[in-house]
Amino acid sequence: MPKLERDGEVFVLHLDPDDENRFHPDRLAAVEAALDEVDAAAGPRALVTVGGGKFWSTGLDLDWLLSNADRSAAYLDRVHALFARTLASPVVTVAALNGHTFAAGAMWALAHDLRVMRLDRGFFCLPEVDLDLPFQSGMSALIRARLTPATAHEAMTTGRRYGGGQALAAGIVDAVAQADQLLAAAVERARPLAAKARPVRAQIKETLYAETLTALRTPTAR
Amino acid sequence: MPKLERDGEVFVLHLDPDDENRFHPDRLAAVEAALDEVDAAAGPRALVTVGGGKFWSTGLDLDWLLSNADRSAAYLDRVHALFARTLASPVVTVAALNGHTFAAGAMWALAHDLRVMRLDRGFFCLPEVDLDLPFQSGMSALIRARLTPATAHEAMTTGRRYGGGQALAAGIVDAVAQADQLLAAAVERARPLAAKARPVRAQIKETLYAETLTALRTPTAR
Amino acid sequence: MPKLERDGEVFVLHLDPDDENRFHPDRLAAVEAALDEVDAAAGPRALVTVGGGKFWSTGLDLDWLLSNADRSAAYLDRVHALFARTLASPVVTVAALNGHTFAAGAMWALAHDLRVMRLDRGFFCLPEVDLDLPFQSGMSALIRARLTPATAHEAMTTGRRYGGGQALAAGIVDAVAQADQLLAAAVERARPLAAKARPVRAQIKETLYAETLTALRTPTAR
Repeated sequence: MPKLERDGEVFVLHLDPDDENRFHPDRLAAVEAALDEVDAAAGPRALVTVGGGKFWSTGLDLDWLLSNADRSAAYLDRVHALFARTLASPVVTVAALNGHTFAAGAMWALAHDLRVMRLDRGFFCLPEVDLDLPFQSGMSALIRARLTPATAHEAMTTGRRYGGGQALAAGIVDAVAQADQLLAAAVERARPLAAKARPVRAQIKETLYAETLTALRTPTAR
Repeated sequence: MPKLERDGEVFVLHLDPDDENRFHPDRLAAVEAALDEVDAAAGPRALVTVGGGKFWSTGLDLDWLLSNADRSAAYLDRVHALFARTLASPVVTVAALNGHTFAAGAMWALAHDLRVMRLDRGFFCLPEVDLDLPFQSGMSALIRARLTPATAHEAMTTGRRYGGGQALAAGIVDAVAQADQLLAAAVERARPLAAKARPVRAQIKETLYAETLTALRTPTAR
Repeated sequence: MPKLERDGEVFVLHLDPDDENRFHPDRLAAVEAALDEVDAAAGPRALVTVGGGKFWSTGLDLDWLLSNADRSAAYLDRVHALFARTLASPVVTVAALNGHTFAAGAMWALAHDLRVMRLDRGFFCLPEVDLDLPFQSGMSALIRARLTPATAHEAMTTGRRYGGGQALAAGIVDAVAQADQLLAAAVERARPLAAKARPVRAQIKETLYAETLTALRTPTAR
């Protein structure tokens, strides 16, 4: 399960190092509680999210979904809400991509303000086209709002797997780092931005991403 | 007239090597029939479009339009439909730009998934501003959806002629090649993507380009 | 006060060299009159805007606004109208950023067709997040329409100060120049584009920026 630690003004949300970090409802609840704690904290603060093993997150928990098909719309709404609150957060968020970042995991990474990716291993990938899974409107809007037209097109319509250097060249991540320096690099980017965690920053993001947030907040058809 | 050939999983639509490949209704009918054949084919497949002479396509057939002014709205709808079906196609499309790619020809190239351009000769150009021709809403939406803001602005408001290297730098094309290697380079890009020709890919593109496709499918005012 | 001069086909609007060039209503009136003169001129023409001291423009006149709170909505509408007419202008406009370009000044610069920035001193900056000032919808739409998603996000949500080289790398400006060559560089870019000042260019920009212009032209809530 995720664990929240604090390093001065930087909160670090450690995703499970022994897990793919799929969005099982219990994991979502733990992430939501961690974000609630960051939101409730006063004063300058930033947030880094990081895993410890081969995965950052591989997105939707398809096993759980198959066993709970009657709850799929509510589940998707909950995942969309995670994307929306991250995208609209006044707190600067930095995803330290220590490993595979796939599908809805990749979308959550894009909802962060910044991404730093491990250079030697792991892929950023939207494999939906190969899995016969279309994107929900809100997901599509989120990806398009954060990437250049050419990168969004390639990532969404070919399922390309981007290694760290390729993700940097495509503008998917903002920096790369060696595996053993990844967390430090992400914290170093987050710390000087801790003072930006002001209510106006949420207002600015609500206006900048108005259409995307509306799409993410529209309930999934039942 | 255009001629469709097949090279394994890659269809190659040869545009007329002795012609500017303007969109005369007869040419549109032949292109539509070729696209129908590609759509109807089963299994993995991709499409490369290429000319053979100095031109890839110079767009609307203004001579025909002047003689058929009463049919201009239906004609524009048909051209917009070509753009829309190319943009939304599940089959990966690669335009091999062997020569001048102008105006609505340039827009059709942008509707393809990828563009490879000849390095030594030929221009990509939207000359509308110099011809006193405004862009239809759907055309404007298409260009903006496929280029960065700065490139769309420059291309549409100055009529700049981009050679191969300049088009690559501006993000208009994805690769350049020597003239005698152009078709091979395009086929090489298309072949590994043949397996992506799945119905879900059309769904993904419908969502990604929803506003653009709606604009292209809105009938021209009569 | 601003002063309009003419150098062949290029008008040069000299902003006040001894001033921050905030948008006091009197300054707005002088800029509007200069733009009226450029609009009314016949034939090929382009426009360069430049200051002479440490500032290009630092945007809204907050001192005046504090003393005239009852007129703030009309004032914002007037500033938005300046952005809209610049963005939609058929005349090619080049901002020669000789010094600090902040807040609504930075937005006005983005409404120009092109920006050339002094290399050694001065910053482009949207400091709103640090001043607890949200962006109006039209302002947000303008910035997003002119920059890549990553640059708009960083500029608007972190208040980063971009020097000339950084602004070039981020795609905020199109070129940089030494201070003593800045105006000449801007004029050199503008002159060959003077012939583009045709009514159709305004039509093309109205379609390209339809949503942004609608947002800028929507009256501020009173």
